[in-house]
Amino acid sequence: MSTKTQEPVITSIDDLQTSEARWLALKRIQYVDQTGKSRTWEVATRKTRGKAGVDAVAMGNVLRHPRRPPATLIVIQYRPPLDAYTVEWPAGLIDADETAEQAAVREFKEETGYECRVTSVSPPQAADPGMSNANMQLVMVDVDLAEDDSVAPEQRLEDGEHIERVIVPLSEFYDRLVEYAARDRYVVAAKLFHFAAGMQFAQTNKLT
Amino acid sequence: MSTKTQEPVITSIDDLQTSEARWLALKRIQYVDQTGKSRTWEVATRKTRGKAGVDAVAMGNVLRHPRRPPATLIVIQYRPPLDAYTVEWPAGLIDADETAEQAAVREFKEETGYECRVTSVSPPQAADPGMSNANMQLVMVDVDLAEDDSVAPEQRLEDGEHIERVIVPLSEFYDRLVEYAARDRYVVAAKLFHFAAGMQFAQTNKLT
Repeated sequence: MSTKTQEPVITSIDDLQTSEARWLALKRIQYVDQTGKSRTWEVATRKTRGKAGVDAVAMGNVLRHPRRPPATLIVIQYRPPLDAYTVEWPAGLIDADETAEQAAVREFKEETGYECRVTSVSPPQAADPGMSNANMQLVMVDVDLAEDDSVAPEQRLEDGEHIERVIVPLSEFYDRLVEYAARDRYVVAAKLFHFAAGMQFAQTNKLT
Repeated sequence: MSTKTQEPVITSIDDLQTSEARWLALKRIQYVDQTGKSRTWEVATRKTRGKAGVDAVAMGNVLRHPRRPPATLIVIQYRPPLDAYTVEWPAGLIDADETAEQAAVREFKEETGYECRVTSVSPPQAADPGMSNANMQLVMVDVDLAEDDSVAPEQRLEDGEHIERVIVPLSEFYDRLVEYAARDRYVVAAKLFHFAAGMQFAQTNKLT
């Protein structure tokens, strides 16, 4: 496992032309709207989408321990697009020949070290529909912890990945995200925040 | 209000160079990582971010009626990036001189016709942190409906906007989103789906 020795630093940001980009592209869409009028729209896309037709998975996860209350594992990593540490659920791109379920189990093991059981798979969701065609599926997984879980399993990170794992009891989930968001150079990912806010909303409005 | 006379049709999709784009850009970020190694990352950005430093707001909303159970209003619109009708909470870009709260009240009125009261404003959240620097704030609002709400207020849509409003009881929120996701040419936005999934999770796991 590589050692963190310094804070990441951005050294330059330059305009990138679509013809020179490896991972992303901009597209101009021409379309005829509901009233018959011709219009244009600009969109960002990934160049990596495979057969599944879905870019990515995120793993909503519940860690179940014989004695302790249920918790969830969040991951914190430096994200150059934001020049910040983001707080997210484990996630990753779906490989060309994978299903969402297979990608979820593989990525969860790589990023967290834990084996998981898939409990549900959402329909494809639009990540940011006004700006991009990126889509993803939310895969909910359970992790069964041993009675003695004092040694966390080893991550299998790719070169360049530095991912911190934090286990948060579900009862503190929303409050902890609000705390992270208040820290200097930390940003919570919108999907994670919305899930926790939905939990919080149901609880405070007694919608059970 | 403009009339919907046909289904939208995409007539062409072309590569768009950053130098020719009006709303979006690709950037190449050079950075030095935690171990001192130089790396690059590709990112999509908006060209429109104003003083607030945040691109957009979404309005999580609760419609409160004197007699009926609480409901929420979702909006459905054709989104060229996905060539599909997306199901979302009302949302919009924050204007250069606006706060998130001001943008929320203005956009909610424009898209839905309803006046709303802001009940909470989230910290900035990263919309899709692996791919873009886009960020947003979730503004929760309440709408107080009159006893007789049989006539919906008029929307103030911009030229080219065609937004269908649907009121969903909160008790049916998650199930209705799953139904929409199963329809041909419909996609649910990830943030909305995650909020509803969080509510559903809290309810089924009795986390109150």
